[in-house]
Amino acid sequence: MKKKKIDAYAKAGVNIDAGNEAVRRMKAHVRAARTPQMLADIGSFGGLFQLPAGYQQPVLVGSTDGVGTKLLIAGALKQYHTVGQDLVNHCVNDILVQGAVPLFFMDYFATGKLQPKVAEQIVKGLSIACRENGCALLGGETAEMPGLYQGEDFDLAGTIVGIVEKKNIIDGRAIKPGDVLLGLPSSGLQTNGYSLARQIFFKQLNYKPATYVPELKTTVGEALLRVHRSFLPVVKPLLKAFKIKGMAHITGGGFIDNLPRILPENRRADIRLNTWPVLPVFQFMQERGNIDQATMFRTFNMGIGMILVVGAKDAPVIMRSLREKKEAVYRLGEIAAGPRGVLLV
Amino acid sequence: MKKKKIDAYAKAGVNIDAGNEAVRRMKAHVRAARTPQMLADIGSFGGLFQLPAGYQQPVLVGSTDGVGTKLLIAGALKQYHTVGQDLVNHCVNDILVQGAVPLFFMDYFATGKLQPKVAEQIVKGLSIACRENGCALLGGETAEMPGLYQGEDFDLAGTIVGIVEKKNIIDGRAIKPGDVLLGLPSSGLQTNGYSLARQIFFKQLNYKPATYVPELKTTVGEALLRVHRSFLPVVKPLLKAFKIKGMAHITGGGFIDNLPRILPENRRADIRLNTWPVLPVFQFMQERGNIDQATMFRTFNMGIGMILVVGAKDAPVIMRSLREKKEAVYRLGEIAAGPRGVLLV
Repeated sequence: MKKKKIDAYAKAGVNIDAGNEAVRRMKAHVRAARTPQMLADIGSFGGLFQLPAGYQQPVLVGSTDGVGTKLLIAGALKQYHTVGQDLVNHCVNDILVQGAVPLFFMDYFATGKLQPKVAEQIVKGLSIACRENGCALLGGETAEMPGLYQGEDFDLAGTIVGIVEKKNIIDGRAIKPGDVLLGLPSSGLQTNGYSLARQIFFKQLNYKPATYVPELKTTVGEALLRVHRSFLPVVKPLLKAFKIKGMAHITGGGFIDNLPRILPENRRADIRLNTWPVLPVFQFMQERGNIDQATMFRTFNMGIGMILVVGAKDAPVIMRSLREKKEAVYRLGEIAAGPRGVLLV
Repeated sequence: MKKKKIDAYAKAGVNIDAGNEAVRRMKAHVRAARTPQMLADIGSFGGLFQLPAGYQQPVLVGSTDGVGTKLLIAGALKQYHTVGQDLVNHCVNDILVQGAVPLFFMDYFATGKLQPKVAEQIVKGLSIACRENGCALLGGETAEMPGLYQGEDFDLAGTIVGIVEKKNIIDGRAIKPGDVLLGLPSSGLQTNGYSLARQIFFKQLNYKPATYVPELKTTVGEALLRVHRSFLPVVKPLLKAFKIKGMAHITGGGFIDNLPRILPENRRADIRLNTWPVLPVFQFMQERGNIDQATMFRTFNMGIGMILVVGAKDAPVIMRSLREKKEAVYRLGEIAAGPRGVLLV
């Protein structure tokens, strides 16, 4: 099984031993994230994935993403597996909002100097999250490019492919006034807003990643590295039982940028502040960093990682079903007629 | 249509105007590489692609790759669209060897400082190659990370997803002694061996990218930026008409590393030197760079971009059919019994 084409780079003033060691270290993690649909890949150049049966008009949903500057925090703390989890979970959520469940994931890991233990930790994280989401880790690429990346700096990106029955695609088209906005809580910054967060914590406040912050009951590093939550386990049962009209993954740009992506023309989302607990990390950044509220809401998820738009009658039933499973859910507001956008009220 | 999530990075000390301009510049190129299977993506977080009908047991084949340090040559010459083509064609070839035809492609473009014109040229190249290969450009991610990439430095990676009928997967399993190795010519270095090539041309010989090399009848830069050839147009008709037992895309590691990836146990590939024209760029690097032959063959494709393994009876028929279409093809050697590997004879 050939997960990584590291040896291809051995001629690049690149350490072939490091490459081999990385492949050896990654192997068990990659194997752990196999799924039955993955076909044995003897001498494969690409990864083979047999399409699950039972779809009438299967539609594939693909999304590519990176981890952004959360990587720099991981590097500073030398904690690497969680950014692997972040990346997979982020991608899972990005296709979930269209009603798709994940099939497989592939990563791109590029660095100036390959550290086998770092590569192993990254792939371990990918593997953990792939298993948690029932997603195959189908393959990936590891590149050592000393001319482009400085030393042990690295970048990490990934692509997910999922599937949805055509008639079950969620596209927000049916959203109408009176529909209800339900919010599912995030675990922290998820994977967005790190440039501003780094500026506040490390430049304005002059903290170190290891600085303990009483208000957060943890260190800055731990608070900032909280794993991006996958909403698949919570949302998947809802997709079968209820009519979900629209879903927005609250990533970079916050409510303001992400909610309008699923709203039809002349539909406005009215969100009432104080209907959910803003996480302490956001309160802390807003107060101590002296950041205005508009910037906060345009940069961070503020404690809500996923928003569902559902009919007014379904809303209380869905909320009850989630709370019975001990899942937190907040009624954030309603859809109104008006220019497409988000109104914080 | 939301191809690029650039605005999500606007808070990162990142230039939102550059992001918007890049999106505007990319738009036409992205639109040009739509295919009918792509569904209108209102407010999409991921790209939607309806699976073509007519497959009994559809198997998806995925591959992720980067362009490697060919990017540095592109940067030096400020010629960007061709590396976009390189990346798509490379990926197309990587899944073609398993018998798959491409469905869609997604890119990851990360840079220290977003240059809208550079991003446009890259996406233009992706779009050109996607159209040439009948592949949808389904989406992508553009990230501006000044903390990780220096200035205008950038990295480019991509993921392709293709499809093959399960019973038509090409896996080399049936390769047996007496089978024939046919070689299809490469256009140049394709996308591999650039670190060694840069060392020879720019360090040992002290050339500049603009240096004209009489032996190559062109400048170093032009010779090194030749577009990675897609073998899909040549190979696709062969897949329907003939039994292709195995195919190897000759990438990093050359014949030596890539051919064994498709050979069964106890099958050796005997390749006769001088059965194909080694491209002048390789001759030049070997002689002037004083590189031994083993290193050359372990680093470069030496003029052969794709190798097909076919039955002895099929070989002359296939060669004739290609030559009738004015396609060059070389009989490189045969499969023998022996420890899995490549013997240059």
